[in-house]
Amino acid sequence: MPPTRCWRFPRTVPLPETTRNNILRYKTKVDKILQAALEQKQYHHAAYDGLEDFVERFGARPSGSDELEDSIDFMKKKAEDDGFRVHTEEVMVPRWVRGEETLMMLSPRQKSMSILGLGTTIGTQQYPGGVLKAEAVVCDSFDEMEKLGEAKIKGKIMVFNAPFGDPMDEPMKRYGASYKYRTSGADRAAQYGAVAVLVRSRTDYSLYTPHGGSQYYGNSTQIPAAAITAEDARIIARHYKKGKTVTLMLKMSAANLPMRKSRNVIIDYGPSDSTELVMLSAHIDSWDVGEGAMDNGGGVFVNYHAVKLLKELGLMPRRTIRVVFWTAEEEGYFGGKEYVKMHEFDISKMQIAIENDLGTFRPVGLRAKGSDEAACFVKHTASLLGAINATGASDSPSLSETHLLHDKGVPAAAIDVDQSRYFWYHHTEADTMDALDPHELDLCVATMAASAFVFADVPDRVPR
Amino acid sequence: MPPTRCWRFPRTVPLPETTRNNILRYKTKVDKILQAALEQKQYHHAAYDGLEDFVERFGARPSGSDELEDSIDFMKKKAEDDGFRVHTEEVMVPRWVRGEETLMMLSPRQKSMSILGLGTTIGTQQYPGGVLKAEAVVCDSFDEMEKLGEAKIKGKIMVFNAPFGDPMDEPMKRYGASYKYRTSGADRAAQYGAVAVLVRSRTDYSLYTPHGGSQYYGNSTQIPAAAITAEDARIIARHYKKGKTVTLMLKMSAANLPMRKSRNVIIDYGPSDSTELVMLSAHIDSWDVGEGAMDNGGGVFVNYHAVKLLKELGLMPRRTIRVVFWTAEEEGYFGGKEYVKMHEFDISKMQIAIENDLGTFRPVGLRAKGSDEAACFVKHTASLLGAINATGASDSPSLSETHLLHDKGVPAAAIDVDQSRYFWYHHTEADTMDALDPHELDLCVATMAASAFVFADVPDRVPR
Repeated sequence: MPPTRCWRFPRTVPLPETTRNNILRYKTKVDKILQAALEQKQYHHAAYDGLEDFVERFGARPSGSDELEDSIDFMKKKAEDDGFRVHTEEVMVPRWVRGEETLMMLSPRQKSMSILGLGTTIGTQQYPGGVLKAEAVVCDSFDEMEKLGEAKIKGKIMVFNAPFGDPMDEPMKRYGASYKYRTSGADRAAQYGAVAVLVRSRTDYSLYTPHGGSQYYGNSTQIPAAAITAEDARIIARHYKKGKTVTLMLKMSAANLPMRKSRNVIIDYGPSDSTELVMLSAHIDSWDVGEGAMDNGGGVFVNYHAVKLLKELGLMPRRTIRVVFWTAEEEGYFGGKEYVKMHEFDISKMQIAIENDLGTFRPVGLRAKGSDEAACFVKHTASLLGAINATGASDSPSLSETHLLHDKGVPAAAIDVDQSRYFWYHHTEADTMDALDPHELDLCVATMAASAFVFADVPDRVPR
Repeated sequence: MPPTRCWRFPRTVPLPETTRNNILRYKTKVDKILQAALEQKQYHHAAYDGLEDFVERFGARPSGSDELEDSIDFMKKKAEDDGFRVHTEEVMVPRWVRGEETLMMLSPRQKSMSILGLGTTIGTQQYPGGVLKAEAVVCDSFDEMEKLGEAKIKGKIMVFNAPFGDPMDEPMKRYGASYKYRTSGADRAAQYGAVAVLVRSRTDYSLYTPHGGSQYYGNSTQIPAAAITAEDARIIARHYKKGKTVTLMLKMSAANLPMRKSRNVIIDYGPSDSTELVMLSAHIDSWDVGEGAMDNGGGVFVNYHAVKLLKELGLMPRRTIRVVFWTAEEEGYFGGKEYVKMHEFDISKMQIAIENDLGTFRPVGLRAKGSDEAACFVKHTASLLGAINATGASDSPSLSETHLLHDKGVPAAAIDVDQSRYFWYHHTEADTMDALDPHELDLCVATMAASAFVFADVPDRVPR
């Protein structure tokens, strides 16, 4: 039996006895959902098979691409065919295209290096022949850059060889502590006169795989920004720290094209007269590399199959379960921001928003973001998942789109998974079906279906 | 105490009581060597630091390159400076250059795919614009290709999506069972009229990393041959097996240039009047990707530091320890073959040849190739390595250059290591210093030094 008082640093938190009992009363129904998800033949590997078909059709789905729009049409039609109430809502999204990109170390020895330009980066078209040749300067942190000062940086290519957070932290925390070098490295380095920025890929393990992702220009001069592999960051840093002159040749033809219309897909399942909502959140767009299978096709298909399972089991919850497939998450939550702007009323009636963007690996429980009372509510819900050994409950450092809802007061949760390999694939060409396991996706469907049903059906509101 | 009779399938094998005792008598000296290698300050991470300096200077060292020749000069000078007897022996080696290479899937959807042309492959220069466009045909095995027949293969690009051996086997055995698709895939597929061959990379894990390696043309028409990632092999195969037409566009500018002079480096340590030899074997060349750190800079530096350790400890063995750095191993043992041709006398006087080409990871013992009696001799020697938990003894499926010596009757052994990640890096851009661990290299030095000393000093000859 879980405690009525949850421990959450730095204090214990009360949960009303009736609320606690109302949650725990779902044990039988939860077990029924888990059993159906994992033992009924028609659900065996259904999410994986659906996702495989999906990525086979559309591949990567970057913001502004035809592939993304086609994949949105496809999911809308799939939900309609399955008898759901579906609609889409328009969102203007950015369209950044990578073009060709090459990096060569010219001295102290020649080496061709793999790169991935960062989202919204400009290219090197303004240089003669479209090629930027410059000396490298290496910093492990913004502090080191500050100490080095403009005189030693001006006209050079800044290489941020920052570690991937603290190795003693969990992967998402390591990412959270260190992605600033990717997102604002160009803006910060430009303030010191750097002509381009190369950022060591954010990962704890590499097989020479560059990791892309978003970056944002601020008020300083826009300079090209790209990720390099952990291996090449080490190689450049090694030469540099020994006092050798490292000369680099960078060529990037990236470009930012006009914004384009895209759509969030919104699927509702619940009584037609219900006004309260439980949201299942996952983004349908991806970066332009790999297949966007793990990030976040997996989330899309797990959430969809979770609500489909509830529907087919005839489990109609008290509240509406709203499955949203966000557009243009990777470039900065364009779909999520538009939703928050347009849905003030929904947001006030939202029971909880459950994110599914930590990778669809083996589920270990739920994460929570919100008041201590809300976290305790989530913890009690997770305690019902003993049959699949997913009763963990932990705080979340960040939760993609549900973070935006949380900022508006909505309690937020997320399906928590074994993330040990998440950042091996994150934003890389290796984000393909090979990163995922069919049975683990079944376990994720079971977790999402059961949790969503409890939150949507329990009489009590999750405390704000 | 190890048994006097060794179990080796399918029977137990005798080892003379005196031989056994003569080997086991080295326990104290072996412990002294292990202790020095691992506890004396000047040896702490010495092999790793030396290797790091080496790859920093020369990077990849493909056959026929200036980098390889410069690295040979460097190691020769290093050994001379350290007071060893050193000489080099000339070898004519091939010079294959990769040039530019791109692969694009045009249908059923567009996807750019990473490739690595295989050593000695021709390019696509003979096609209009240097570009070969053709439909793909996918086979999981040569048997499947045979069943498919020429009519369905002619004019197409053959994609070998063969599994990486049997997952229940150890990595080297999986490789041994399946590298034929890389080495002779082009030759075999050309017999059925294929216009190019793409081979799924030989590995059990991939982060979108293509794995190169050698391939050999036979008597059939020469066609371009390249490796693709495990991910892309799966993607192509998935489309193909569902009956879709997969169209590929391949561009490769690879070329075979005239042979060039290179050298084996031969370092001798032992009494000047000794005629018997113990050979420590490792190749100094690498493929042209990554830094050739694991394959096989690690072997070169471990073997060198092993003999250097013995010299500095003043341990002069009965026989000469000959450290050889082979040239042009990757293209087909050019250095090794020349040595075997030129050294008939040495070979007859060779006690044992110890290979170091399984990756310099945590050592687990010794492998053996030769008579049952020789294997038993090796097993007893490994039994002395208890202090570093490396007493394992196993048969070896293959042993690089020492295999050539074994074919001439020389008993062969190899330092055996934890190979669980070996094929993650093998022949890829990820073969950099990041693949290796400084302490594991120290353990390898300890293992090689101790084993070499026992084999070189024990009164008994290893039975042939």
